[in-house]
Amino acid sequence: MSAHFDGWPHVIEAQQFSRQWIETEFLPTVNDMRHIVEVRECSILKGQKMVVLFYQPSTRTRMSFEMAMAFLGGTVAFSSENAGEFSSARKGETFFDTVKVINCYYPDVIVIRYNRQIGAKFAAEVSGAPIINAGDREPGQHPTQSLLDLNTIFQRRGEIDGLRIAMVGDLKNGRTVRSLSYLLGKFDGVQIDYVSPTDSQMGDDVKDYLKRHNVLFRESRDLREVAPFVDAIYQTRTQTECGASLDRNDRSLGYYIVDRTVVDLMKNNAIIMHPLPRVDEITTDVDDDPRSVYLTDQVKSGLFTRMALLKMILAPDV
Amino acid sequence: MSAHFDGWPHVIEAQQFSRQWIETEFLPTVNDMRHIVEVRECSILKGQKMVVLFYQPSTRTRMSFEMAMAFLGGTVAFSSENAGEFSSARKGETFFDTVKVINCYYPDVIVIRYNRQIGAKFAAEVSGAPIINAGDREPGQHPTQSLLDLNTIFQRRGEIDGLRIAMVGDLKNGRTVRSLSYLLGKFDGVQIDYVSPTDSQMGDDVKDYLKRHNVLFRESRDLREVAPFVDAIYQTRTQTECGASLDRNDRSLGYYIVDRTVVDLMKNNAIIMHPLPRVDEITTDVDDDPRSVYLTDQVKSGLFTRMALLKMILAPDV
Amino acid sequence: MSAHFDGWPHVIEAQQFSRQWIETEFLPTVNDMRHIVEVRECSILKGQKMVVLFYQPSTRTRMSFEMAMAFLGGTVAFSSENAGEFSSARKGETFFDTVKVINCYYPDVIVIRYNRQIGAKFAAEVSGAPIINAGDREPGQHPTQSLLDLNTIFQRRGEIDGLRIAMVGDLKNGRTVRSLSYLLGKFDGVQIDYVSPTDSQMGDDVKDYLKRHNVLFRESRDLREVAPFVDAIYQTRTQTECGASLDRNDRSLGYYIVDRTVVDLMKNNAIIMHPLPRVDEITTDVDDDPRSVYLTDQVKSGLFTRMALLKMILAPDV
Repeated sequence: MSAHFDGWPHVIEAQQFSRQWIETEFLPTVNDMRHIVEVRECSILKGQKMVVLFYQPSTRTRMSFEMAMAFLGGTVAFSSENAGEFSSARKGETFFDTVKVINCYYPDVIVIRYNRQIGAKFAAEVSGAPIINAGDREPGQHPTQSLLDLNTIFQRRGEIDGLRIAMVGDLKNGRTVRSLSYLLGKFDGVQIDYVSPTDSQMGDDVKDYLKRHNVLFRESRDLREVAPFVDAIYQTRTQTECGASLDRNDRSLGYYIVDRTVVDLMKNNAIIMHPLPRVDEITTDVDDDPRSVYLTDQVKSGLFTRMALLKMILAPDV
Repeated sequence: MSAHFDGWPHVIEAQQFSRQWIETEFLPTVNDMRHIVEVRECSILKGQKMVVLFYQPSTRTRMSFEMAMAFLGGTVAFSSENAGEFSSARKGETFFDTVKVINCYYPDVIVIRYNRQIGAKFAAEVSGAPIINAGDREPGQHPTQSLLDLNTIFQRRGEIDGLRIAMVGDLKNGRTVRSLSYLLGKFDGVQIDYVSPTDSQMGDDVKDYLKRHNVLFRESRDLREVAPFVDAIYQTRTQTECGASLDRNDRSLGYYIVDRTVVDLMKNNAIIMHPLPRVDEITTDVDDDPRSVYLTDQVKSGLFTRMALLKMILAPDV
Repeated sequence: MSAHFDGWPHVIEAQQFSRQWIETEFLPTVNDMRHIVEVRECSILKGQKMVVLFYQPSTRTRMSFEMAMAFLGGTVAFSSENAGEFSSARKGETFFDTVKVINCYYPDVIVIRYNRQIGAKFAAEVSGAPIINAGDREPGQHPTQSLLDLNTIFQRRGEIDGLRIAMVGDLKNGRTVRSLSYLLGKFDGVQIDYVSPTDSQMGDDVKDYLKRHNVLFRESRDLREVAPFVDAIYQTRTQTECGASLDRNDRSLGYYIVDRTVVDLMKNNAIIMHPLPRVDEITTDVDDDPRSVYLTDQVKSGLFTRMALLKMILAPDV
């Protein structure tokens, strides 16, 4: 398994990663990154140039990529936090032209969050420089989020095989739960509980994939019914970035909130995750519970994961 | 006096600084910074990472912080010029969550201009990394501005004790005059003339503070009456960033403008200051007067002051 | 000929460059830059600080300047992609004040795209630091674009004298064709075909300049009539950034589009250029024609040209 993901230099969707790559390359490299951050001095990407192009603003994700590049000694040679507003996209240029132009400036890697679906995949078709997908428009994918989520679970539980994981919220429009589902499909004996209102259920494309990969999943409508049995609750926003939303007047919405009642039902070694930003779907009195990782380990995993990907892409032999 | 402001690593409000720290640490360090800029080569902050998060845009202040970091050899690892629009704030995330997340990326210092009052103070409550307040929403504070203002006066006059200073404009909503008043309260024999319309007078919180610190202040309504007696005129915008405003149709508005008539009344060694941007409250024919420092020494003091603060926070022992 | 453009440190308009400077300094330096990019390691601008201030967003141009600085080892110490929205301009500050303030932060070079005409020229009047004009509001000038265009032609044809070049589109409002015309006026025997609807013709200021410099130009209304005879077609947007536009319902609009019919009429060694972004005024089936340079050589020339200018301004003796 090459550091370049089977010879393809791009990071586009969760399905592209093999279990072997995850176990023998990705997880060990992430672990190395933690040590680099502690030492706070590293120059393995010295002189390498990253271009960051966000058509959909995201302080958190953009910051984690740019901090990752800084910790590895590389240069963020260009960054736009709202290219959708500020670029020639407004003047009618096609995204293909934009990607071709950027390639003429000889970047070493291009990090893209596009404001339409599968933008990163299109970019990869015409880009010589490696493309990293920093999040499709929802629904779609967010592959680096799913890798950091997987690493978070692995760090806490030491394995992925055999775990039972609840994903909660607007599953129909959430890109993070889609990408994580694809990734979990690579492992054995994983069970997924999709907990959502009927009009926000996980899409058939993902469910068909899970069936083909023998991943057991159930759909239910009350988090409290599954909380006692799962190893992780992956809570998501009920309001997605593209505007889709759970009906917040629905009196059953309480069924999808992580509060002390839910947490008290959980196993001692279970964990509580959230891709953030969190609004009110996890109550703040849960934040300090030792099982909560969404404001601590999971975010740090985002930095280490992006560092690992940049290192594997830009300095595979170091 | 520790370089870390009595053990507290944050720069939040003018009151936090002691006279001793100002005289024995701050002013001498600012002076050193001027030499670093002249030599144009310094790497004492090499590898240190600054995160800049502006919820309220300000080209000037953001530039002075980022140039300061560059002159010291540090890295601006992330910068957002309009985080209020572009971040998860729009999605409903609390500011506490945002600050906790940023801390997970291991920044060495976080520079924040928040779009509500006392944002930086809230951030300091949950941040392990030092927070520098780059300006509260008005009214509120702007502590680094008051330090650079104080340094400007000190450089020109060689002392602060015993000076008489006029502050002019919308004092009710101006954060710069609020912070500078707190700072002047640390010195002996200072007199302040607050010159403003009755509905734009300095707030009682500041005036109570001055009384407790035995600072003599007077309130008046015509700059020409005090101009002959003061050592500095600190002019401010009549239109503040949060929209409050002097009534520009008020025929008495001329009482609050610095023009040649006012300047001709001033002492030869007095100075004319303005936090900028200036609209028409100082006429341009005053710009070249040797007493005017608002487009020269005062702005440079902003660069040196931010350099000094970064140096004291990030490399106190160098 | 000094590297500082006859002692003047600024890059403001195409007329300022002499033929001698172009031939003996500019074109050879651009050629050197290509080698620096290939080697990917250079530190001749180490410690030098660039300030980038765009009042009119442009991902492409801003990226080429910032990548240029990165390839030379310099620091982009501050960048704003929408200073018109985010700066004190909104608070009423004059541009003169803004430029004076920036100079107080000791930048080595200031790259400006202003949102009104002749902004860069005004900036140069009060700036000690060199100003590079990254594009006036249209109509106006875009001098670095014209230099990169000239270099593109030179690289392909080995000379400029005697060439015949068609410029097509909304010539009245296009800054790129204006600057390129001025630059071509420095050479001998050049012929220009201006191809546009009658209400979008090239301005008299440029035409008068060409007459004074003995450059032969013709105005026509159908690209197909001149395509067989020219050495380059310089296509432009029909919709300019300031909103002016060709009437897209005009049934004669086809006369101004570069498609296979036009390309098949062209000479084998002619080239097809476009300043980008391209909408539909060049059909995509032309992209792969070996004569098309607008998504390849011409864009790369932008990187090398900006590198060359920065090198000549900031490290003339290296």
